[in-house]
Amino acid sequence: MIRRPIVAVIGNAKATPAQCALAEELGRLLVEHGCRVLTGGLGGVMEAASRGARRASNRSDGDVIGILPGDDAAFANEFVDIAIPSGMGFARNVLIVRTAAAVIAVGGGAGTLSEIAHAWQADRIIVVLPAEGISGEFGGRALDDRPRPPILKALSARSAVELVIESLGARHSG
Amino acid sequence: MIRRPIVAVIGNAKATPAQCALAEELGRLLVEHGCRVLTGGLGGVMEAASRGARRASNRSDGDVIGILPGDDAAFANEFVDIAIPSGMGFARNVLIVRTAAAVIAVGGGAGTLSEIAHAWQADRIIVVLPAEGISGEFGGRALDDRPRPPILKALSARSAVELVIESLGARHSG
Amino acid sequence: MIRRPIVAVIGNAKATPAQCALAEELGRLLVEHGCRVLTGGLGGVMEAASRGARRASNRSDGDVIGILPGDDAAFANEFVDIAIPSGMGFARNVLIVRTAAAVIAVGGGAGTLSEIAHAWQADRIIVVLPAEGISGEFGGRALDDRPRPPILKALSARSAVELVIESLGARHSG
Amino acid sequence: MIRRPIVAVIGNAKATPAQCALAEELGRLLVEHGCRVLTGGLGGVMEAASRGARRASNRSDGDVIGILPGDDAAFANEFVDIAIPSGMGFARNVLIVRTAAAVIAVGGGAGTLSEIAHAWQADRIIVVLPAEGISGEFGGRALDDRPRPPILKALSARSAVELVIESLGARHSG
Repeated sequence: MIRRPIVAVIGNAKATPAQCALAEELGRLLVEHGCRVLTGGLGGVMEAASRGARRASNRSDGDVIGILPGDDAAFANEFVDIAIPSGMGFARNVLIVRTAAAVIAVGGGAGTLSEIAHAWQADRIIVVLPAEGISGEFGGRALDDRPRPPILKALSARSAVELVIESLGARHSG
Repeated sequence: MIRRPIVAVIGNAKATPAQCALAEELGRLLVEHGCRVLTGGLGGVMEAASRGARRASNRSDGDVIGILPGDDAAFANEFVDIAIPSGMGFARNVLIVRTAAAVIAVGGGAGTLSEIAHAWQADRIIVVLPAEGISGEFGGRALDDRPRPPILKALSARSAVELVIESLGARHSG
Repeated sequence: MIRRPIVAVIGNAKATPAQCALAEELGRLLVEHGCRVLTGGLGGVMEAASRGARRASNRSDGDVIGILPGDDAAFANEFVDIAIPSGMGFARNVLIVRTAAAVIAVGGGAGTLSEIAHAWQADRIIVVLPAEGISGEFGGRALDDRPRPPILKALSARSAVELVIESLGARHSG
Repeated sequence: MIRRPIVAVIGNAKATPAQCALAEELGRLLVEHGCRVLTGGLGGVMEAASRGARRASNRSDGDVIGILPGDDAAFANEFVDIAIPSGMGFARNVLIVRTAAAVIAVGGGAGTLSEIAHAWQADRIIVVLPAEGISGEFGGRALDDRPRPPILKALSARSAVELVIESLGARHSG
C-alpha cells in the first residue's frame, strides 16, 4: 500500500487519567511507526490519542483525523488536523471502522463495543488493551464464526502498536 | 404514542432451525400484540421473523418492514411489506435501531452485537433470548455506566414479547 | 413486483396553501392508486401529502411513511404511520430516494433539488409539477448524459399520479 | 480557524481534457493557497484535482482527501493521501459537502448537482466554473429563499480559488 495506514484509537469521551495516558501513548507511537491516527474527534480517549499523535517526533500536519458525530467541525478537539463532521450521529462509528485498517480500543462502553463489532464485520485488525471498560473483555475471542483471527490483546501501548504494525505487514504480504 | 410501536427482531442471516422457529414466533406475537416488525430484510432470523409477522391472525399489509444494507429492494425477503434499501451496508444497523422502540435478539454475531450496542447508545429496550450466538451473553448486564436498566433476558418468545410490551407501557406512562 | 410501490412526495417544510393543496391531492390519489406515500416526515408539503394519504377512501394503516432527518420519531407529523428517524440530517434525502420507486416534486428548494438529483442518479421516475420553487424548472430535461428518459412534467396532481402509475407499469413489463 | 480549510473540487468521473486541466489547476492552486483538497476520490475531475494538489510546490502528505462511495480504499485514485471509504454510495456526497468549507464545481451531472444542492443547504461557499455540464448553469443564482449569497461564478481556476479564499476570510472575520 502506498498510502500510509490509518489506525483508529477508540474509547470513551469521558476517560480516566490512566486511559488517557494509554491513548496518548498510542497516538504518539502510531505516528512514530508511520501511521495516521483516526478517532471520533471528541474528548477523553479521542482527544488524548490525538494529542499524543501531535507530539510524535516525526509528526506532520495531516496525521490526525477526526470523524465527528455532529455536523460542525468546530466541535473537534484542538489536536485534530482533519475534521470530518459526518452529521450522522453514532452511525459515524461505521465510518471510523471503514476508514481504519486497524482499531485499538482503550476501555469504552457501548459506542466502543459497536465499533469493535463493526470492525469484526469489516475484517479489520482489532486490538484491545486492559483498561476499565467493556472492550478489554473481548481480547482473544471471536465474535462469530466468520473466518477471522481472534481479537488481539495487548498489555501495553507499545505492544498494541507493534501488534498492529506486524498484522498490517502480514496482511499485505499475505 | 398514537403510532403503533415498531419492534426489531435481530439475528443472523444464516440461522439454525431453532433460531428460525423462535424468530417466527416473535414476529407473529409482536403483530398480535399490536406492534410492527422490523428486521434487516434479508434471510435467516430476519426472514423467519417477517414470515411470522405475516402469519399473525390480525396481520395487515404494512406490518413488516425491512431496512436493507444494499440499494435494491428486490433483495428483501418475500415477507417484507415495506423495503427500505439503505445502500449503506452495515451502517443500516444504526437505522434499524433508531427506527425501533425495542429490539429482540435471537443469537447472532458481530452484526447483532453492533445493533445491541447501538440500541444501548440510543436507549432502546433490549431483550435477548437464549440461542446459539453472541447476544445471549448480554442478558442481565449493562454495557457501560449510562443510566439504563440492564439488558433484559427472556426464556421464550412469548415472554420476550411480554417484556417488550410491558417496558413500552412503562416508558410511556413514566 | 408483489410489494406495493412506494412513491415519494417531496417539497418544502414551509409551503404555500397552493403547494399544500397539490401535495394533499397527490397523497390521496397515490393511495387510491395502490401506492404507499413516502415523505421526509415533517411539515409543509410533507405533512400535506401525508394528510392526503390518510384521507384516501381505501387508506389503511401503514400507507404513510416518513424518513426524518433527526433521530426522534416524535417529530414526525401526525399523519405518518411509520416513522424512520434516520438521525442523518439531510443525508436522509438519499434514503427517501432509494426507498421510492418514483418521486413527485411540488416546488421546493435546495433539499428538493438534491432529491431530484439523487433520484436521477438512482434511475427513479421523477415527475415535477408547476409550483413556486425550483423543481418546476426541471420538467422535460435531463440532468446529464446518463441514458434516462427526461424528467416528467405534469400539470395537475391527477396527471402526475397517472404518469407515475403508467411509468411504473412500463418499467415492470419492460 | 486553526485547522487548514478543506475545499472540495466536484465534478464527473468521466471528464473532458478541458475539465481535467481546470480541475488539476484548481487542486494545485488550492494547496498553494494553504487549503487541503477534498474530492470523491475516484477518476476524472476527482483524479485531476487530486493530481494537481500533489503537484503543488508546497504540497505535503495529507493534503489530498478522498471520500469514496464504496467501502474499499483501494478504489481511491493514486493521488489521494487519505481515503475515507464511506460504503454509503452516493450518500457520500453529503459527507463531502459537510467536510468542505467550500466547494468548486467543474461541469458535472446529477451527482455534482446533488452536491451543490447539499452545499446550499449546509451554507457552504459554492463556486462554479464555465465547463461542459450542469453546474455552470447555477452561477449567480440562489436555490431557494434561504438567506445566502448567490452561488459564485468564476471564469478561471485562479479566480475560483481567489473567490474561495476571499469568502473564507470574510466568513471568519464576519
